[in-house]
Amino acid sequence: MKSDLKQLIEMQDMLSSSDFSDLAARIPITDLLEHWDLIPDPLAIRIFDSLPVETKADLLTNLSPADLGEILLKLNEQEIRQLLDEIEPDDLADFLQTVDSETRQAIWNGLSDEAKEETLFLLKFDEDDAAGLMNPRFLAIRSSISIKQALNFVRKRVSDVETIYYLYVIDYLKRLIGVVSLKDLLSHSDNTLISEIMETDVVSVLADTDQEEVARKLETYDLISMPVVDTDNKLLGIVTFDDVIDVIREEQTEDIYKMQAMSGEPEKYMDTSVFRLVLKRIPWLIVLLILGTSTTLVMSFYTGGVKESADTLSMLFPAIIGIYVPIIIGTGGNTGGQSATLIIRGLATGEIHFRDIGKILLKEILVGLMLSLFIGIVIFGRCLLFPPHATLMQAFAITSALALVVIVANLIGALAPLLISRMKMDPAVMSTPLMSTVIDVCGLVIYFEVARAFLL
Amino acid sequence: MKSDLKQLIEMQDMLSSSDFSDLAARIPITDLLEHWDLIPDPLAIRIFDSLPVETKADLLTNLSPADLGEILLKLNEQEIRQLLDEIEPDDLADFLQTVDSETRQAIWNGLSDEAKEETLFLLKFDEDDAAGLMNPRFLAIRSSISIKQALNFVRKRVSDVETIYYLYVIDYLKRLIGVVSLKDLLSHSDNTLISEIMETDVVSVLADTDQEEVARKLETYDLISMPVVDTDNKLLGIVTFDDVIDVIREEQTEDIYKMQAMSGEPEKYMDTSVFRLVLKRIPWLIVLLILGTSTTLVMSFYTGGVKESADTLSMLFPAIIGIYVPIIIGTGGNTGGQSATLIIRGLATGEIHFRDIGKILLKEILVGLMLSLFIGIVIFGRCLLFPPHATLMQAFAITSALALVVIVANLIGALAPLLISRMKMDPAVMSTPLMSTVIDVCGLVIYFEVARAFLL
Repeated sequence: MKSDLKQLIEMQDMLSSSDFSDLAARIPITDLLEHWDLIPDPLAIRIFDSLPVETKADLLTNLSPADLGEILLKLNEQEIRQLLDEIEPDDLADFLQTVDSETRQAIWNGLSDEAKEETLFLLKFDEDDAAGLMNPRFLAIRSSISIKQALNFVRKRVSDVETIYYLYVIDYLKRLIGVVSLKDLLSHSDNTLISEIMETDVVSVLADTDQEEVARKLETYDLISMPVVDTDNKLLGIVTFDDVIDVIREEQTEDIYKMQAMSGEPEKYMDTSVFRLVLKRIPWLIVLLILGTSTTLVMSFYTGGVKESADTLSMLFPAIIGIYVPIIIGTGGNTGGQSATLIIRGLATGEIHFRDIGKILLKEILVGLMLSLFIGIVIFGRCLLFPPHATLMQAFAITSALALVVIVANLIGALAPLLISRMKMDPAVMSTPLMSTVIDVCGLVIYFEVARAFLL
Repeated sequence: MKSDLKQLIEMQDMLSSSDFSDLAARIPITDLLEHWDLIPDPLAIRIFDSLPVETKADLLTNLSPADLGEILLKLNEQEIRQLLDEIEPDDLADFLQTVDSETRQAIWNGLSDEAKEETLFLLKFDEDDAAGLMNPRFLAIRSSISIKQALNFVRKRVSDVETIYYLYVIDYLKRLIGVVSLKDLLSHSDNTLISEIMETDVVSVLADTDQEEVARKLETYDLISMPVVDTDNKLLGIVTFDDVIDVIREEQTEDIYKMQAMSGEPEKYMDTSVFRLVLKRIPWLIVLLILGTSTTLVMSFYTGGVKESADTLSMLFPAIIGIYVPIIIGTGGNTGGQSATLIIRGLATGEIHFRDIGKILLKEILVGLMLSLFIGIVIFGRCLLFPPHATLMQAFAITSALALVVIVANLIGALAPLLISRMKMDPAVMSTPLMSTVIDVCGLVIYFEVARAFLL
């Protein structure tokens, strides 16, 4: 815990009320956020009360819904209203969707009529679309005014909007026809007309554009904010860079979860109930288990579980072959997981496309060969030098089999995401564990067939 | 491929040079970036030539180093210089570090003396630190001037700097003593003094602050840019939100690679040589293989590979027990991987701390119990209903063992990242595959011991 916060907690009863406020206001908000759940409840409320209203708003939009609820329910309507005035409408709409119904009611009662209207408008849109991220408050001007007039307009409206750094130019039907940055505005003389300097080739997104594409577009053009329009090109709102950063973080968590075979929207771990955690995890675990039982068929075929089968090789293999089964499966899974991750990530960042399949195939064949060389040396040494010792022939069999498994697993890992993306499905969902099931089955078949060729 | 670009490629020989330029300028830069490697070389250069200079700069900072080199080497010194003027010094320094030496030489010769000096200054810093991200061009003012004077200053300097949206207030020793946003400036009357409105509690970072912390701080405060200072609080430069977005993307790729047991800095897959890919992948594969060979000891102990041992249970188990080994290992790995991912991600986003270990333990015990219930039902049905059929007793043994493995694997997955983070190491490195090795060994021991208890 950092010193200012620690000091405050230790000295809370000794400080005069104004010293307390001064000290509280000095604590960096990052410290408050990190240690919020360690601060005893009544003190937390007292600290919150003594913060400047802007810091309060920053804290609110960063705290977890549960912590938030506790604070809001202790405030009266007027205090809530004052606070909510500091929060942008888009954050407010997100916010209302995360808190429990009691808190939601308290917030709603505290809203001004205008804020209520804006919130209802925003809640109409899907929260994963551009419109779900947008702020309906922006600066819009006509192209016929001068820079001097535009600057006066900015100065008049400055406190009503989140960002004043772009002025959007609209026609009489509210259609977006241009954009001028405040930087452009300040770099020309007062009498220049907006129409002379505005950029008419406006980078914008449609209301139903997926948030991931919104993020990528804002990034490519390094914009502070991006306009959202409807199909008639009417300006509905703007998405700002801070919302895009949240989207990138959220999509990132979602991708990581998917790659580890978990479904659903990312939520904060500590706020998620046991039941929801199970629900998020069990579907894929069951699917993988059912797919994975195909390995029992391979195993029984080769090691004599199916006593009835005429093809059975029961008891034909020396015990040492069975002992290396976990290594074959593990190494195949690790290798395939690596190549799959490289390709899935490349597809997600837009750096790899299906059309590169030829180049990727060639590259991964070479990589697989080199990996299998190194891995082969290690496993060959392991077989011969440490107990349980294998015979030379057994060591050759195990090493060749593992080398082949590495090459095949590496290719399966690289090709699977490419094919999945070709079928317009999400390659991250074809997650590493699902692929490792395929690799397990192929790996076992390769292993036992190579062992048969060498040893029987 | 989108229509404008396609049209241009198809009609390139029919178009007059001005029609060509018009059409080229109309192609969205996102389309150009996505399809750049599909455009034949001479045409790519021709398209590049006809773009407005700002679009050229946007394209340059987004293209891969290889594509970039090809373009830059075709331009003469004057063209390069004109282009480089559009690129911010921090992007330029990053850029110089990624291109090959021939291109680097061409760029360097094209730089103005001022740009050379700035670049040398920036290259002194570690590229993963705050200073490695910063732009040394910013607006700095004294606190004694009025808003009118400040606005005039902004208008005079507007074309020299990347962002004019914050004015940093410094004292005579160039120490950072305050900040005023352009928004604040415009919301007060002309004669107000900067000292009256400046925010003296400036959020800043030190030159050697890790880029991940820079990103988190900028996010928490929703800043467009953040000042970087030295230990004397002297202002060195600013980090802008677009650099932070790049950092977040980069750290994200690095985390995903680490979780899949790959080391080193993230690079673009298509630009990475086969040899570098092998180098990135082989160390962990070998480590995991060596750790994984511990499973051979467990396997041989229980299934008779070590003929010498007096403890051996050789041939005591029915064949069906061996057949389910891959399922035990696979399901244990999947379960542990899920809980590890949830905790690693929570630690990375700062939502989970070591002090929560009690709550997490309790939660994961409950989750593990519920998961093992569902998984137990599925595996029990599988054992009895499908070939190779197990006896009732065998099915009980396999089901109880798998249920226990799920509970243990789930706890190992959750605890390992917490303990690793406690030891001040990076939990993402304790990647899923490494943990699955531990889970494999524990899982096999549990499996065979339960089977022994039920069946022998």
